[in-house]
Amino acid sequence: MKRIFLLLAMIGGLEAGAQQLPKLERVEPASWWTGMQYHKIQLIVHGANIATRSVHFSYPGVQLLEVHKVENPNYVFVDIDITKDALPGTFPIVFSKAGEKDLKYTYTLHARNNGVKAQGVTSKDLIYLIMPDRFANGDVTNDVVKGMAETTLNRDSMYYRHGGDIQGVIDHLDYLKDLGVTAVWLNPVLTNDEAHASYHGYANTENYQIDPRYGTNALYKKLADALHQRGMKLIQDLVHNHMGLNHWTVKDLPMKDWVHQWPTFTRSNFREQPVYDPYASKADKKLMTDGWFDTHMPDMNENNPYLCNYITQSHLWWVEYAGVDGFRLDTYAYNDADYMAVWGKIIKAEYPRLSVFGETFVHGVPNQVAFTAGNTVNRGINTELPGVTDFQLLWAIGDALNAKSNTWDDGVIRLYNTLASDYQYQDPTRNVVFLDNHDLSRFYSVIGENTAKYKAALAWLLTTRGVPQLYYGAEIMMKNFSNPDGLVREDFKGGWPKDSVDKFTAQGRTAAENDLFNYLRTLANYRKENPVLQTGKLMQFVPEAGIYTYFRYDNNKTLMMIMNGTDKDTTVRTDRFAERTQGYTRAVNVVNKEVLPSISTVAVPAFTTLVLELKK
Amino acid sequence: MKRIFLLLAMIGGLEAGAQQLPKLERVEPASWWTGMQYHKIQLIVHGANIATRSVHFSYPGVQLLEVHKVENPNYVFVDIDITKDALPGTFPIVFSKAGEKDLKYTYTLHARNNGVKAQGVTSKDLIYLIMPDRFANGDVTNDVVKGMAETTLNRDSMYYRHGGDIQGVIDHLDYLKDLGVTAVWLNPVLTNDEAHASYHGYANTENYQIDPRYGTNALYKKLADALHQRGMKLIQDLVHNHMGLNHWTVKDLPMKDWVHQWPTFTRSNFREQPVYDPYASKADKKLMTDGWFDTHMPDMNENNPYLCNYITQSHLWWVEYAGVDGFRLDTYAYNDADYMAVWGKIIKAEYPRLSVFGETFVHGVPNQVAFTAGNTVNRGINTELPGVTDFQLLWAIGDALNAKSNTWDDGVIRLYNTLASDYQYQDPTRNVVFLDNHDLSRFYSVIGENTAKYKAALAWLLTTRGVPQLYYGAEIMMKNFSNPDGLVREDFKGGWPKDSVDKFTAQGRTAAENDLFNYLRTLANYRKENPVLQTGKLMQFVPEAGIYTYFRYDNNKTLMMIMNGTDKDTTVRTDRFAERTQGYTRAVNVVNKEVLPSISTVAVPAFTTLVLELKK
Repeated sequence: MKRIFLLLAMIGGLEAGAQQLPKLERVEPASWWTGMQYHKIQLIVHGANIATRSVHFSYPGVQLLEVHKVENPNYVFVDIDITKDALPGTFPIVFSKAGEKDLKYTYTLHARNNGVKAQGVTSKDLIYLIMPDRFANGDVTNDVVKGMAETTLNRDSMYYRHGGDIQGVIDHLDYLKDLGVTAVWLNPVLTNDEAHASYHGYANTENYQIDPRYGTNALYKKLADALHQRGMKLIQDLVHNHMGLNHWTVKDLPMKDWVHQWPTFTRSNFREQPVYDPYASKADKKLMTDGWFDTHMPDMNENNPYLCNYITQSHLWWVEYAGVDGFRLDTYAYNDADYMAVWGKIIKAEYPRLSVFGETFVHGVPNQVAFTAGNTVNRGINTELPGVTDFQLLWAIGDALNAKSNTWDDGVIRLYNTLASDYQYQDPTRNVVFLDNHDLSRFYSVIGENTAKYKAALAWLLTTRGVPQLYYGAEIMMKNFSNPDGLVREDFKGGWPKDSVDKFTAQGRTAAENDLFNYLRTLANYRKENPVLQTGKLMQFVPEAGIYTYFRYDNNKTLMMIMNGTDKDTTVRTDRFAERTQGYTRAVNVVNKEVLPSISTVAVPAFTTLVLELKK
Repeated sequence: MKRIFLLLAMIGGLEAGAQQLPKLERVEPASWWTGMQYHKIQLIVHGANIATRSVHFSYPGVQLLEVHKVENPNYVFVDIDITKDALPGTFPIVFSKAGEKDLKYTYTLHARNNGVKAQGVTSKDLIYLIMPDRFANGDVTNDVVKGMAETTLNRDSMYYRHGGDIQGVIDHLDYLKDLGVTAVWLNPVLTNDEAHASYHGYANTENYQIDPRYGTNALYKKLADALHQRGMKLIQDLVHNHMGLNHWTVKDLPMKDWVHQWPTFTRSNFREQPVYDPYASKADKKLMTDGWFDTHMPDMNENNPYLCNYITQSHLWWVEYAGVDGFRLDTYAYNDADYMAVWGKIIKAEYPRLSVFGETFVHGVPNQVAFTAGNTVNRGINTELPGVTDFQLLWAIGDALNAKSNTWDDGVIRLYNTLASDYQYQDPTRNVVFLDNHDLSRFYSVIGENTAKYKAALAWLLTTRGVPQLYYGAEIMMKNFSNPDGLVREDFKGGWPKDSVDKFTAQGRTAAENDLFNYLRTLANYRKENPVLQTGKLMQFVPEAGIYTYFRYDNNKTLMMIMNGTDKDTTVRTDRFAERTQGYTRAVNVVNKEVLPSISTVAVPAFTTLVLELKK
């Protein structure tokens, strides 16, 4: 560990090995757009001793504001203003030095992307999270890319690459659409040129390039277009907090404080509390936000304005370039809160509809609420984070269905209680609700592979408030625990050309899998077609004896959901729900279309969430 | 149950038995003060067919604003304005009817009480909660009062009266002061003329009278004076939510909606969530706030302005009359939130320093925070409640010391985590922290009568943030569980003239009791003498391996507390606490005065909270 740190410090020094570096290695962002809100951009320029050169260019409407020299002479940061008068086109940026030939970089200004983009993923959507390496291999020619740090391909190990890619996702968009999915969230697909476990993508080494093993920038844009053509959306997974140790700016640091440096390798304490605790020590807070997430994940210094500009601009770039619709922010709590608030404002100013939700892998409503926008009591900061991954509801649905018994304080009451706490959010419908993801045990395993409980949870997921999210394979009952073997990232069977079975097809699925698949598909498509489950109001009643009843309703429809969290079939009297049932006499079971001629009492089997559309 | 309800409805009707009622039974408040902020008062006048009479009086500066006739002719409500021009004095209020003799009530206007009053009980204080019937019997002549509904005296039963009284409290103020107590909170002492279990006082039948079995109004004022003479304070326990079934206004209801009436007897659902849940049904909320707390506790209708005036005025009256310093609000969550906010503003306008804390017997920080002032996110109401009984910290200290093991999520981390949530309060130092009270199992029993754990908890109680509160007998290790036998309300041995032992004296206590008593007394008096533990800042560090370290500090002193929540003696390195230990090299153990020549490492025995004053 210590070795790695010292290496960083050395490379970051002024003596960095300029001999291997081209005189002008790169400029990022390599292009921008005219007519953007964000029109003052900062170019990062990398080249051997580039700081010894002057910078100049001439293009109508584009002004050179300032050239910043930093500790490492292999960098200059160039502030330019692309004013309203600038038209699309190209122009050379010239780097001059007395007695040496000019270096030229052809800069491109595009017209803005008027295609579909930045639509925002909302409670109208159903998100499907895909680990791109493990979903489908649509292009075997990019499985191994020579010259990259990791060139092994080994589907027998959870830690090596398996060959899944963006083409594999594109190939299955119709499958996803049929399932009822409306938005796809991919784990990060930026180049992740690390030697080990590069498949997960959370240690990017480039900010403006899709990993060649997943495809190209153009293919990523094609994915966005293919989604948009189907009325679907694309969520990009952003990691502000860290990069890969092989990120090009980390291998040759612009300045020592580009990343958080420690005397010896120092991990985060992984405790969210110091971020908001009014009694926290600076030491604990620093450890939380500045400690490294892992040995190969340097913690970025979000107090460094150059670093902030670099990553913020790359995020805007992908929206405008590819047409991304929403952002998921990784390891949200580990970031610098002040920077993230500024970042949030910049994104919102440029793309008001674009949605943003942050990962808050914490235990406790206050712990989660602390990171959301609008919670300013005694804290002095508005995080500007609209939504979060709602871990509290995840723990709660687990408690609801896995309780030993339903008592005054245990069982479905926990789900009810957690939702009641929603008064603390500015808008809880922006939270993403889910049963599992790439870091978590699959819910089907969590509830003991009990299919009834699994169905009850899925029905809840698609009928409660917020933006529901599925993890790939949920529909075919993929299982396993996240510890110790990480098997929750197994391949989707049928995604590889030579797979012996194809779970993407009914023929490839077992009877039990088809039953579950059809159950989920029915509910997801019902949700897609019925605004009441997207934007309808929620009303919940105090649970009694392990039975939790809630409603979604709007001017057109009323749905009554009854969750039986017990292992006993039961019959529920509905008179105390009169506020919502008034005017209705019958109901249709949304899943099996069964008609209930009366709703004064409703039979609810053990571990079931009935979804009933009320009828007059 | 049904019978009781019907009785109420009948008595509330117009035909109520006027024959037994005097023509002018009473006027309340019987007196008021000149120069009050709250100068427009509403008199409730009760007498047989009093509404058939006109009301008039003449007194300089006092205006008759309006006479309200209501459903029951035995009542009139008379609005009067005691303007700035009014001087202290008395005047007759005359009730006239053609052909009948005038009825006269001599109304008294006092000069304001310029004595000590409304000081506020703050984090500078240490509260001692006393159940008056069970603490000390200072006047055996009032043990049984003839004519009252309950006249039995039986110290062998937890449900009958035992004879304790206000004189008994006065007799032991020096004992309490010596212990380090600075404020006394009595369970309600208003007349509670119920036939059964009248001892607890939470079903009052009068609003302006001390229960004769506890003493007189004058004696209550004497208690306040005796406290104030010792630099101590008095907290009055208020019950807005309900009264006793024998309350004089309930036996002859002014109008049907004076209390919440239900078709059949209906209990509260005892669920706090509907009060703040954005998804709550009106039915659940109504059940929570309007359902009866118990069969003999009618739920008051706080939407009835006459009722609101009646109880609010009585609260102001006791402050001005007796010199009360703070209010504890019973069953806070069950009240009407809008009324309580108005009530809070009225109290604050009259007595800005007077402290108020509400009982929030709930599970969950959001559940508790919902009731406190300043939490307006998405809720649309500011409750105006400054502080609460901090049940969340109670559960947390239990978790800290009773954990099976200290893991990532269990043990002392829960205490740390709960305090970190303090960012949600406008001012968490107004919360009352405690280990037990009259409704709870005594903490000494909760932690398995483990004296080390008990001491660790007491040290924490006196060194964490907020207003610490002891329950009578905590200092002599009184024990027992609240269920099923209610033995947590046992008599304090020595409080009755013929008690065979006297635990108020060192001689009467066992060696173990004296050890604990002296431990607590030392800490309490240290706290009393050292502002750092009253108003000093708090800093807490992320617990590691079951060790929780926190500091209280101000410009003069720094205290380091180390809680070992494990069953192993350990030695703690303090280098990570440098932010607070910097400049200090030594320490003194506040309890045993032992000097620690170095603080670079500190030995902490199993289940111990060390309290160390740092020295340069």
